[in-house]
Amino acid sequence: METISQARAFGGMQGVYRHDSEVTGCPMEFAVFTPPQAVDGPVPVLTYLSGLTCSWENVTVKAGAQRFAAHEGVIFVAPDTSPRGFDFPGEHESYDFGSGAGFYVDATEPPWARNYRMYSYVNEELPALIAANFSVDTERQGIFGHSMGGHGALVSALRNPQRYRSVSAFAPIVAPSQCPWGEKALGGYLGPDRAAWAEYDATELIAKRGWNSEILVDQGTADEFLESQLKPELFQRACEAAGVKLTLRMQAGYDHSYYFIASFMEDHVAHHARLLKSD
Amino acid sequence: METISQARAFGGMQGVYRHDSEVTGCPMEFAVFTPPQAVDGPVPVLTYLSGLTCSWENVTVKAGAQRFAAHEGVIFVAPDTSPRGFDFPGEHESYDFGSGAGFYVDATEPPWARNYRMYSYVNEELPALIAANFSVDTERQGIFGHSMGGHGALVSALRNPQRYRSVSAFAPIVAPSQCPWGEKALGGYLGPDRAAWAEYDATELIAKRGWNSEILVDQGTADEFLESQLKPELFQRACEAAGVKLTLRMQAGYDHSYYFIASFMEDHVAHHARLLKSD
Repeated sequence: METISQARAFGGMQGVYRHDSEVTGCPMEFAVFTPPQAVDGPVPVLTYLSGLTCSWENVTVKAGAQRFAAHEGVIFVAPDTSPRGFDFPGEHESYDFGSGAGFYVDATEPPWARNYRMYSYVNEELPALIAANFSVDTERQGIFGHSMGGHGALVSALRNPQRYRSVSAFAPIVAPSQCPWGEKALGGYLGPDRAAWAEYDATELIAKRGWNSEILVDQGTADEFLESQLKPELFQRACEAAGVKLTLRMQAGYDHSYYFIASFMEDHVAHHARLLKSD
Repeated sequence: METISQARAFGGMQGVYRHDSEVTGCPMEFAVFTPPQAVDGPVPVLTYLSGLTCSWENVTVKAGAQRFAAHEGVIFVAPDTSPRGFDFPGEHESYDFGSGAGFYVDATEPPWARNYRMYSYVNEELPALIAANFSVDTERQGIFGHSMGGHGALVSALRNPQRYRSVSAFAPIVAPSQCPWGEKALGGYLGPDRAAWAEYDATELIAKRGWNSEILVDQGTADEFLESQLKPELFQRACEAAGVKLTLRMQAGYDHSYYFIASFMEDHVAHHARLLKSD
């Protein structure tokens, strides 16, 4: 693991790092904020998965999460959104597929299957790397994200309840099998057989697997993608049917931007901290 | 005044606007965050001047100021750092002179004198535009900034005590007559006669004009420009000699970045709010 940069922030340290990923077969960058409490011993870890076109940088510089991570004493990890440095046909041509749009799946279709394995990357390789290099309590991990990253966070949590105690999302894609972004991505990475998509669809997963703690979702009512892509009501109905406690907050007038995320970041970090610090 | 974008944030509205400036002779962009309290009547206004290479955008997306502006009920204004759209010889060749580096002076040297008039722009034309278009209490104005913008904020306040009740700075250039950045900029915009520079040098101004309220300055001890360019001790000595109350906080381990600014933004907005809301 190589350090790209470090800067003091909110009494802790904001770092950016690079490592050679075996899972994706390329160098991967990620950001980690270490709160001041980590000096005294292991602290909970909270991973944020970003949306389409983003890298670790957007949330790290725009969302103000470090203030609350420092207040609550949790490490804040921000991975990239796809492998980098390749040049597969069509990889860099659209904002919603390929680079910057890994959708947190393990691809099975050529030419993506070897490298586009962001599901295993964020749920296995990266947590192990973080645990080996930072002062984390691996019994206390949470995950959240925005849009495509909200989808990734929900899927990651529901499939790995042994790893994650807490999950939340900003404007998540909750049912990728039922929206254009998801159909393009899952079709491209996993192929046309929709049976294979179900393991990457939070609305389908919640029915099969349930979830034991409260899920927090914030969604702006002025989000241009609300009706066409995000459809939180599908997840809401599935949670109700499964007896899962979902707090879905429709935030009046908010759009899909980082101003929306920053406005409610405090509540999300507090949500995770409450669940992660409980015994 | 034309609206470029608006987004809800922290219960208020983050806007970006453009207008044709008479002072600079070109279209100028700026950002304004309007807190929720502005719906009920005029609120104080706080202007932030950015540093070298920045536009309105850096502080608007990176500093987290909106959270505190919403909490305190102040309008937060972020202008650009220079005129734009020209192509004078040498204007775009260095990061510390010309575009992105107006230094908040009214240039007197050709070819800059007609357009590079950021002092009049930020202290006259822009406040009048803000007062005409937003719900501001013009009796309650404060100003602050970072690095070159900290210099601009100190100079603007000290020369306009009738306009500004409060001033603070992050890692300001406090004595441009005594550092390479300042000597290059003031020499280029104002010519070689150093007598003309004194009106743009906070350390010289504080001796002549004083200041009636507390000045807050934060400075990171790991700032790479601390010894060569920033030299807060020069301003500290001048304030002591002039009987001006300066709170200079040397922040251990912090650098010159927006992580530093974001870490102490809460304190600065609170400093201004306290002075702006007092009778």
